[in-house]
Amino acid sequence: MAGKNISMAVIRRLPKYYRYLGDLLDNDVQRISSKELSEIIGFTASQIRQDLNNFGGFGQQGYGYNIEALHTEIGKILGLDRPYNAILIGAGNLGQAIANYSGFRKAGFEIKGLFDANPKIIGLKIREFEILDSDKIEDFVKENKIDIGILCVPKNGAQELADRLVACGIKGLWNFAPMDLNVPEDIIVENVNLTESLFTLSYLMKEDE
Amino acid sequence: MAGKNISMAVIRRLPKYYRYLGDLLDNDVQRISSKELSEIIGFTASQIRQDLNNFGGFGQQGYGYNIEALHTEIGKILGLDRPYNAILIGAGNLGQAIANYSGFRKAGFEIKGLFDANPKIIGLKIREFEILDSDKIEDFVKENKIDIGILCVPKNGAQELADRLVACGIKGLWNFAPMDLNVPEDIIVENVNLTESLFTLSYLMKEDE
Repeated sequence: MAGKNISMAVIRRLPKYYRYLGDLLDNDVQRISSKELSEIIGFTASQIRQDLNNFGGFGQQGYGYNIEALHTEIGKILGLDRPYNAILIGAGNLGQAIANYSGFRKAGFEIKGLFDANPKIIGLKIREFEILDSDKIEDFVKENKIDIGILCVPKNGAQELADRLVACGIKGLWNFAPMDLNVPEDIIVENVNLTESLFTLSYLMKEDE
Repeated sequence: MAGKNISMAVIRRLPKYYRYLGDLLDNDVQRISSKELSEIIGFTASQIRQDLNNFGGFGQQGYGYNIEALHTEIGKILGLDRPYNAILIGAGNLGQAIANYSGFRKAGFEIKGLFDANPKIIGLKIREFEILDSDKIEDFVKENKIDIGILCVPKNGAQELADRLVACGIKGLWNFAPMDLNVPEDIIVENVNLTESLFTLSYLMKEDE
């Protein structure tokens, strides 16, 4: 598989390349040199050449990179050309913000259902979705071939939900609960830990004084 | 300063130590060995000893680490013992989720005001705060000694807001807009880029197939 030998450090940089190349395409730019890309994206030109060499010959000496070919290839490596079905659990403010987030479709993700355990909000509509009772997660996952669970729940209860999702066949978790989940090795977990981000900001502010 | 010579890689791990040590304290655990900590936190015991050696002698051979002393010290290094005043701009779902987020006070951050440019929500109350007109940001920052701006706005307009905040003396930005901000070197920016996180999840899912 194309991406198999690419290091995780490079992979973590790919979304940034993808985003900047997409912006350039939106502005009808067709070719760019590693030097010009370096000025926009902030990595060194040699870092960029090294990273992009990982997936073939899109750069031509003296002509720069073909932006569209590179954008498409990085999209493929990131798996953005494949559709994934997701459900979102925890339809509070954060969950609603995520459900309304337009970036999903661009990334090939489709939210198929929203769930919450709070009787006060079960039945409410967010965009095209009615908030469903968390009791119905298992049936819904099986009937709708759900790949990914998005956890927008507090720390308490997050592990139990993760266990339930894994038990009914989910393959990946996008976890906003401020904790590390214990899951089998073949389950993918991507954490968004706001507390850790805030602590890092605090540290950098302190050092900057 | 205590933290000056600690590498950024170690700093990025400190919030995780801080969080786990806090959980242990909540459960009245007083001492822990690097081996036990390793089983909980997932780093190797030797990594843990190396990391924690960076800030002094809290581990005693055969006794393990004094959890409370270590927790306090890491909190100091992270600057969590200092208060920072913040304003939040963009009071949509994401902004409201962040404003309601209880982790702020624990991290020594206090949100002093919420702002939005949308006349439909200006004047609404979120927790104890009335949503104020974005036009009033400059006066508010000066009157309330605001250190940090939290940007929960879309891509369009984020740079302009960042420029305004920097011009009126803000020192740090917690940026949720899906773009990199151009700011002077002495301004701290911590990005939470949900799109990049989602792309990483997509990549890992694809590789796992």
